[in-house]
Amino acid sequence: MTNGKLYHGASLYPELWSRDVLMRDIAAMKEAGINVVRMGEFAWSVLEPEEGRIDIGFFVEVIGLLYENGIETVMCTPTPTPPIWMSHGHPERMHVNEQGTVMNHGARQHVCTNNAYFRERAALITERIAQAVGRLPGVVAWQLDNEFKAHVADCLCSSCKELWQRWLERRYGAIEALNEAWGTNVWSQTYRRFEEVPQPGPTPFLHNSSLRTMYRLFTMEQIAEFADEQAAIIRRYSAAPITHNSNIPFHLDNERLFRNLDFAAFDSYASQANAHAYLFNCDLWRNLKPGEAFWVMETSPSFAASLESYATPHPNGYVKAEAVAAYALGAGGFCYWLWRQQRSGSEQPHGSVVSAWGEPTIGYRSVLEAEAARRELEPVLLASRPARAEVAITYSDRAKAFLQTEPHRKLNYRGLMNDFYKRFLALGLYRDVVPEGGELTGYKLLFTPFLPYVSPEFLQRALRWVAEGGVWVAGPLTGGRTGEHTIPTDAGLSELEAWAGVKTVYTYPMEGTGSVGEAFGVTAPLSLWSAVFAPAGRETAVVGTIAAGLTPGLAFATERLHGRGKIVMLGSLPCGEAGDLLLQKLIGHYADEAGVALRSDVTPGTLVVPRTGDDGNDLWVIINMDGLGGTVTLPREGLDVMTGRKAAAGALAVAAYEYRVIRMEK
Amino acid sequence: MTNGKLYHGASLYPELWSRDVLMRDIAAMKEAGINVVRMGEFAWSVLEPEEGRIDIGFFVEVIGLLYENGIETVMCTPTPTPPIWMSHGHPERMHVNEQGTVMNHGARQHVCTNNAYFRERAALITERIAQAVGRLPGVVAWQLDNEFKAHVADCLCSSCKELWQRWLERRYGAIEALNEAWGTNVWSQTYRRFEEVPQPGPTPFLHNSSLRTMYRLFTMEQIAEFADEQAAIIRRYSAAPITHNSNIPFHLDNERLFRNLDFAAFDSYASQANAHAYLFNCDLWRNLKPGEAFWVMETSPSFAASLESYATPHPNGYVKAEAVAAYALGAGGFCYWLWRQQRSGSEQPHGSVVSAWGEPTIGYRSVLEAEAARRELEPVLLASRPARAEVAITYSDRAKAFLQTEPHRKLNYRGLMNDFYKRFLALGLYRDVVPEGGELTGYKLLFTPFLPYVSPEFLQRALRWVAEGGVWVAGPLTGGRTGEHTIPTDAGLSELEAWAGVKTVYTYPMEGTGSVGEAFGVTAPLSLWSAVFAPAGRETAVVGTIAAGLTPGLAFATERLHGRGKIVMLGSLPCGEAGDLLLQKLIGHYADEAGVALRSDVTPGTLVVPRTGDDGNDLWVIINMDGLGGTVTLPREGLDVMTGRKAAAGALAVAAYEYRVIRMEK
Amino acid sequence: MTNGKLYHGASLYPELWSRDVLMRDIAAMKEAGINVVRMGEFAWSVLEPEEGRIDIGFFVEVIGLLYENGIETVMCTPTPTPPIWMSHGHPERMHVNEQGTVMNHGARQHVCTNNAYFRERAALITERIAQAVGRLPGVVAWQLDNEFKAHVADCLCSSCKELWQRWLERRYGAIEALNEAWGTNVWSQTYRRFEEVPQPGPTPFLHNSSLRTMYRLFTMEQIAEFADEQAAIIRRYSAAPITHNSNIPFHLDNERLFRNLDFAAFDSYASQANAHAYLFNCDLWRNLKPGEAFWVMETSPSFAASLESYATPHPNGYVKAEAVAAYALGAGGFCYWLWRQQRSGSEQPHGSVVSAWGEPTIGYRSVLEAEAARRELEPVLLASRPARAEVAITYSDRAKAFLQTEPHRKLNYRGLMNDFYKRFLALGLYRDVVPEGGELTGYKLLFTPFLPYVSPEFLQRALRWVAEGGVWVAGPLTGGRTGEHTIPTDAGLSELEAWAGVKTVYTYPMEGTGSVGEAFGVTAPLSLWSAVFAPAGRETAVVGTIAAGLTPGLAFATERLHGRGKIVMLGSLPCGEAGDLLLQKLIGHYADEAGVALRSDVTPGTLVVPRTGDDGNDLWVIINMDGLGGTVTLPREGLDVMTGRKAAAGALAVAAYEYRVIRMEK
Repeated sequence: MTNGKLYHGASLYPELWSRDVLMRDIAAMKEAGINVVRMGEFAWSVLEPEEGRIDIGFFVEVIGLLYENGIETVMCTPTPTPPIWMSHGHPERMHVNEQGTVMNHGARQHVCTNNAYFRERAALITERIAQAVGRLPGVVAWQLDNEFKAHVADCLCSSCKELWQRWLERRYGAIEALNEAWGTNVWSQTYRRFEEVPQPGPTPFLHNSSLRTMYRLFTMEQIAEFADEQAAIIRRYSAAPITHNSNIPFHLDNERLFRNLDFAAFDSYASQANAHAYLFNCDLWRNLKPGEAFWVMETSPSFAASLESYATPHPNGYVKAEAVAAYALGAGGFCYWLWRQQRSGSEQPHGSVVSAWGEPTIGYRSVLEAEAARRELEPVLLASRPARAEVAITYSDRAKAFLQTEPHRKLNYRGLMNDFYKRFLALGLYRDVVPEGGELTGYKLLFTPFLPYVSPEFLQRALRWVAEGGVWVAGPLTGGRTGEHTIPTDAGLSELEAWAGVKTVYTYPMEGTGSVGEAFGVTAPLSLWSAVFAPAGRETAVVGTIAAGLTPGLAFATERLHGRGKIVMLGSLPCGEAGDLLLQKLIGHYADEAGVALRSDVTPGTLVVPRTGDDGNDLWVIINMDGLGGTVTLPREGLDVMTGRKAAAGALAVAAYEYRVIRMEK
Repeated sequence: MTNGKLYHGASLYPELWSRDVLMRDIAAMKEAGINVVRMGEFAWSVLEPEEGRIDIGFFVEVIGLLYENGIETVMCTPTPTPPIWMSHGHPERMHVNEQGTVMNHGARQHVCTNNAYFRERAALITERIAQAVGRLPGVVAWQLDNEFKAHVADCLCSSCKELWQRWLERRYGAIEALNEAWGTNVWSQTYRRFEEVPQPGPTPFLHNSSLRTMYRLFTMEQIAEFADEQAAIIRRYSAAPITHNSNIPFHLDNERLFRNLDFAAFDSYASQANAHAYLFNCDLWRNLKPGEAFWVMETSPSFAASLESYATPHPNGYVKAEAVAAYALGAGGFCYWLWRQQRSGSEQPHGSVVSAWGEPTIGYRSVLEAEAARRELEPVLLASRPARAEVAITYSDRAKAFLQTEPHRKLNYRGLMNDFYKRFLALGLYRDVVPEGGELTGYKLLFTPFLPYVSPEFLQRALRWVAEGGVWVAGPLTGGRTGEHTIPTDAGLSELEAWAGVKTVYTYPMEGTGSVGEAFGVTAPLSLWSAVFAPAGRETAVVGTIAAGLTPGLAFATERLHGRGKIVMLGSLPCGEAGDLLLQKLIGHYADEAGVALRSDVTPGTLVVPRTGDDGNDLWVIINMDGLGGTVTLPREGLDVMTGRKAAAGALAVAAYEYRVIRMEK
Repeated sequence: MTNGKLYHGASLYPELWSRDVLMRDIAAMKEAGINVVRMGEFAWSVLEPEEGRIDIGFFVEVIGLLYENGIETVMCTPTPTPPIWMSHGHPERMHVNEQGTVMNHGARQHVCTNNAYFRERAALITERIAQAVGRLPGVVAWQLDNEFKAHVADCLCSSCKELWQRWLERRYGAIEALNEAWGTNVWSQTYRRFEEVPQPGPTPFLHNSSLRTMYRLFTMEQIAEFADEQAAIIRRYSAAPITHNSNIPFHLDNERLFRNLDFAAFDSYASQANAHAYLFNCDLWRNLKPGEAFWVMETSPSFAASLESYATPHPNGYVKAEAVAAYALGAGGFCYWLWRQQRSGSEQPHGSVVSAWGEPTIGYRSVLEAEAARRELEPVLLASRPARAEVAITYSDRAKAFLQTEPHRKLNYRGLMNDFYKRFLALGLYRDVVPEGGELTGYKLLFTPFLPYVSPEFLQRALRWVAEGGVWVAGPLTGGRTGEHTIPTDAGLSELEAWAGVKTVYTYPMEGTGSVGEAFGVTAPLSLWSAVFAPAGRETAVVGTIAAGLTPGLAFATERLHGRGKIVMLGSLPCGEAGDLLLQKLIGHYADEAGVALRSDVTPGTLVVPRTGDDGNDLWVIINMDGLGGTVTLPREGLDVMTGRKAAAGALAVAAYEYRVIRMEK
């Protein structure tokens, strides 16, 4: 969502401050270059102080004041913080956590979003807000709720119980089908009726894996349906596009959630040490609504904090680099949480743009730098768009749910994926992180690590794409589970094996077994739950051999042609420094083989974003993210768009947090 | 339980798979040499899908099919996994943990085994199974339930509350007696009626020690009574011997539990690094039903795992060594959990013999090796029996319960005992681990470490045995508590002091005090809660003196003749490397003094099991357990039973995981 | 409370033992020099075994027996351990913890002290005890209850809910005022009625800071009111002074609690490694009831312990040093917990003076040493009193409550304060730790570290004192919060800034930012949440400058004259070894500037306590606390009071744990 400009925004809570403070904030925002605010997401009690007494007038007026001052509004629905009239005396409406503890009024997300009364009141307040502000010229977009399922995961309340059992009935039709799908005959858990299927509350040992995973999927589906409901109401009164401020750790299926929304947005509070996690988000959210600019809806101008702890403030210069990276990677907005420090509540220490007493904060200078960059870059970025990558990495919140059910030694999908992703940055490979259901056409190289369940739909799509020339690297931890979170009974990796031309000889955990693999000239320890292969037929080549451990001589990596493309199986995760090198060699090898051209020779810590100008020329946005400066090799002569000077082919230096835009003729 | 053969078995779940899979499994088991399966323990919902609709036909048929194929059956009662018709809508039947959380249906052991309705239904299903299969020729033995109290400890449900109060009434007669025994006047906890005595639920600080320990003893007694009930029912319909698959970490009094069962069995998933824990089990379970072969009812062919985590796979060769060690140490059966990998449930990653898709697993080769060894050893082992050891170490689940109540810095009875035991292996001393009530006659040397309460019965028995020539080493942490888990008021170690000829001058924790002890030429730091002695009379000799710390000059180890034997007091635990050496010297010293002959000069990591042939000759089974190989000194010329060659006196080498059987004439 | 002697005491539980044991204990106490016992605090069920059946006769008799033997009594009210007749069948009377768990009968503090029935029964038993023993000659003092709020913090029972809401109503008058004060409009938490304001039970994320802090203040006020009630009842029947055995970790406002009591007392079980924490207590408790001797009501003769764990026994000699330090620093009593080891309950392993079987323990020798010292020192200490310090450090349990609500990375007020305090010991500066409301007149130098809220009352008092010549060092972490636990909206440190002549340019956390400060010739890393200053006007001098980090050139320490004194702002905490040095330089600098004379040149680990004799001369009590011995420089010639010899000016050596008393003429 760009709307003909790049947005630079902040969260504003006019309902918490006097009119006088608001007027000063508006003036200060103008001065700082803030051109959009997000507001309303926690304001339910202001809008409806008593059940049914609704008045949206306050926000109508604020939106007007802002608009008069050149500041547009992302309006929110206030559903994450139901007022006291909803919760007081109604424990049955509250969220119930996995230990069975009923939440009290306080904090946020305390009411169950599946409670019928909540849904009714949420629909009403949403409708009234949409009616009142939906066509105001200042309202440029909508955000639903706030960070769905950030603080809560599965709810075990009785409303959820009933919905869960109905959801199961729709999914399985007959209880016998559920029993069969889940293998409930293990431990005599067999159910006779859907009303008997429990929620995953406390038990002496572990619940059935299918029950746990399905409950996660149920939760993710329900919250997405709530988003659908809200969006449908808003659309009756407003043409402004709708989004949600999501993130990877939340208990959501982001692909499903954004399916019915208009543009994608995320919140990120990664510290500089985790800059790769921030870039991972940009590369993923760009692909949740392809072709539509995503937003960084929240990030700190300096540091995140709550009463419990505070993070490290960003170094000076880093926020500018973050903003430039986001815009270059396809963001239409870059927004701070929050404009004015909270004076009360639970997050008072959190970094802001101005303090609770109205002065610039430690982050203020960074905001000015980001704004200067935005102004400078706006024309060139609006006249270009991020290149489509040639390399795709599949992201799946369903895979995340599977790994939560089956965490082994606290394996964490997010951490595994971020680590895997880091290597693409190190190799200077431009990449898309693509949701499981995303289009593959156009990519040359596909990675699907940590994807326990490869759905028939995905498999068919991937195979078609391989047949047309793609190179698919599947694994590690890919393909060993069914869609019901059980073990395949036909083959270790089920149908995938035949296509990949392998037989899974063994599956077992490699830690502590002295397992070592050799591939691409590198010898490295192997780790994690692994699948060990034998080639099935002459067409399969072993590219990674187990050199030591329990199964020497067998393969941990293979490849096989399929149509005009190739399927590469990676059955284990090389680890340690040598493992890192092995994986980089593997990625580099297949990037070469697949003919990946969108890459650059760049020092680590500096990012190159290739974009395509409306004039057809190539643009490289180069940003130093680590504060150490770096160099990048320009493949051919170009023009430094900011200075108007020529940029010679060869090494180009960038200073700490510096950005450069180089146009190179096609 | 040997029944004229050595059993090699696996757990089978025919109720989870098709008839076709079953037939393939039977064929594969035959091929692998599996001659017994254990089954039925989780099959309640198959046998009784609706309350009262019971049909055992399925297992009758499977037992028959197996038997036709030479495979016998250990049949189980299915009580660890009550079906949904028992738990649904009945929270009052569920287990309640120490935090007061009521369990949901799911996992296993979720229903309270003291609930009257559970007992009634458990009795009925047990009777019906016993009726149906009790006299089938394939049924070679019974297992009650599965791993009693593995996932749950004390239950705080209202059924247990009532039983607890009745149990107390039987134990104490009058509430005044309980108050006096427990010293409830501390903190005004005095009760007026048994109905007032609480279960050990949440309190602001610690419960009375007696209440906590007695609740553990109550729990252990109740579950043993449940086992008694089940056994009695089965015996009405079957002559096959009855066992249970127990283990040390479970919340059980194993001695009491097995009193009314026919043979002993345990489950062990120790990794190779904890091989000593596995051997400890063999040495203990052999002595739970003396003269009757025990079974290793469950062990992994490769690695244990659940959805939460997985262990390290065993090295190739180790499973064979485990099997040989078990058979040599007196096992009649060595069985895997499980034959076919689960496709669903909570333990899918767990090591198995064949995979969910029917192929040999990483552990399969180990199973074949174990079977080859079994076949080779069967004749010689059936024609001999483990020697009775000359050294006994007392094991007490009551002591475990005491240490759970009073864990100091997380002291753990199991860990303390295993560490203590390790030194006997290192010294090549053949040993029995003997339950508290076990017969002492025949032993030369007795150790009773970590036994807070020395009962009058035990004391009298030990004293009689000492008087006849035994050497008894009491301590550390032995004797400082009464049977009610209070402190003696007559002397620090109560009556034991007089017999040992010591006065306990002080008791105090030695960590951090710089305490150092000297004994047997070694100086070592002292640790743990310690009793510090002065000799009481000239007949007591100090053998360990405190050289530094708060009480220099006093004794931590003493000895005194009693009849033809000797009582050695060990008041403190020497620690660190020097402490290890000191303890080895101490053990060695008293082994010499007691004239212990059943020992061998063997390198660490290799096990020597002395057995006595029916021909009266000595057999040594020698097994390398650490995969590094080793040597043992043969005291005299013998015959290598496997090769038929002479084995010269002196050093005999064994290769990694190799086993040898040497017959030496008496 | 000295009553013309120095008390040396122990806790006695005659209700737990036979008459015979009591008589032996009395004889042994006489022999050991114990001249006071504390008793009765857990004896409710002995005094009132059935509701309303009260008989205090037992204690009347014991008090008499003791008194006949020269032993006086501190009598306690038995309210920490309500009998079973109060708790059985009454969950609504029990304490409910922050997770909502209802306590069971057991341990202590299990009944909510705000429950109306509890209050009624507590008043009655207190009255009956006071009536019975209040005028006995042996009763020298009273202790209320025992360690209020040691095991429990905020209670969430329904009695507390109602009281909380009434308390809020009294505090705020109208719900609108509460909403405004707490800023409940954040997250739509706005309440419509006081009955809607929840207790701080479980929520998905953090509660409002004001709610959490106010609940803590409410809890602290309620328990103090309970103490007031008890004291008022006792005073109707007894003239003996009343105290409570408190400590810093308990959930109390000690200043408020002791306001209506007669003398101060604390319990301390600090190990030698934390000797500074013990001295901190002495320096604080001396100032809770200025001019009145405090008591060390409980300390271990050797080590603290419970069933869960035990501490390290004190080195020989250390208890004597503790006793001398306490008496020198103003203690009127030094008492052990406990005389005779418990035979039952939950604390059997705890160090005592005699064992459960009546023998001297490992700590007995220490008791004799302490008694010898007491006897030697009594005349000289009773004829003198501790000097009033020139340096004050403000202590605030309200500040502790604020930091509990907002712990950042587990910041701990106690730990921060103890660390800060340590430096005064190292510098040989004699100091008072003064409660927030304590009188400042007479001090030359004041430190107020870690005081988030500087109340107007405190500010005005401090300013008046500064105007008259005091030097006030404010910070770190001082002044950034309002009394409602919100952020000031006028300036970062609110009103304090104007007086200190600074503008808080930024507030932010310095960890990880490379922040370095320079002051007093030392360069050190800066840490914690920091306020960074610019001088506001020429009168403000920068004394500490930020040399590196995000805000180089700004100040972290400033000073400004105010009247005849000076306000020093310290915005950050220097850390590491260099930070320690910097702080020592800073303290030393301002001690010089303020003309602090009560200091000594003493090696670390040795304590100098300046006292003033009734004859006007100076007395120095010198005690080695670290067991390493040390030296102190006598500023002028004196007399060694113990030996009667001259003590020359200059270096005086003290041996390990030795104490000396030097009289120097004024």
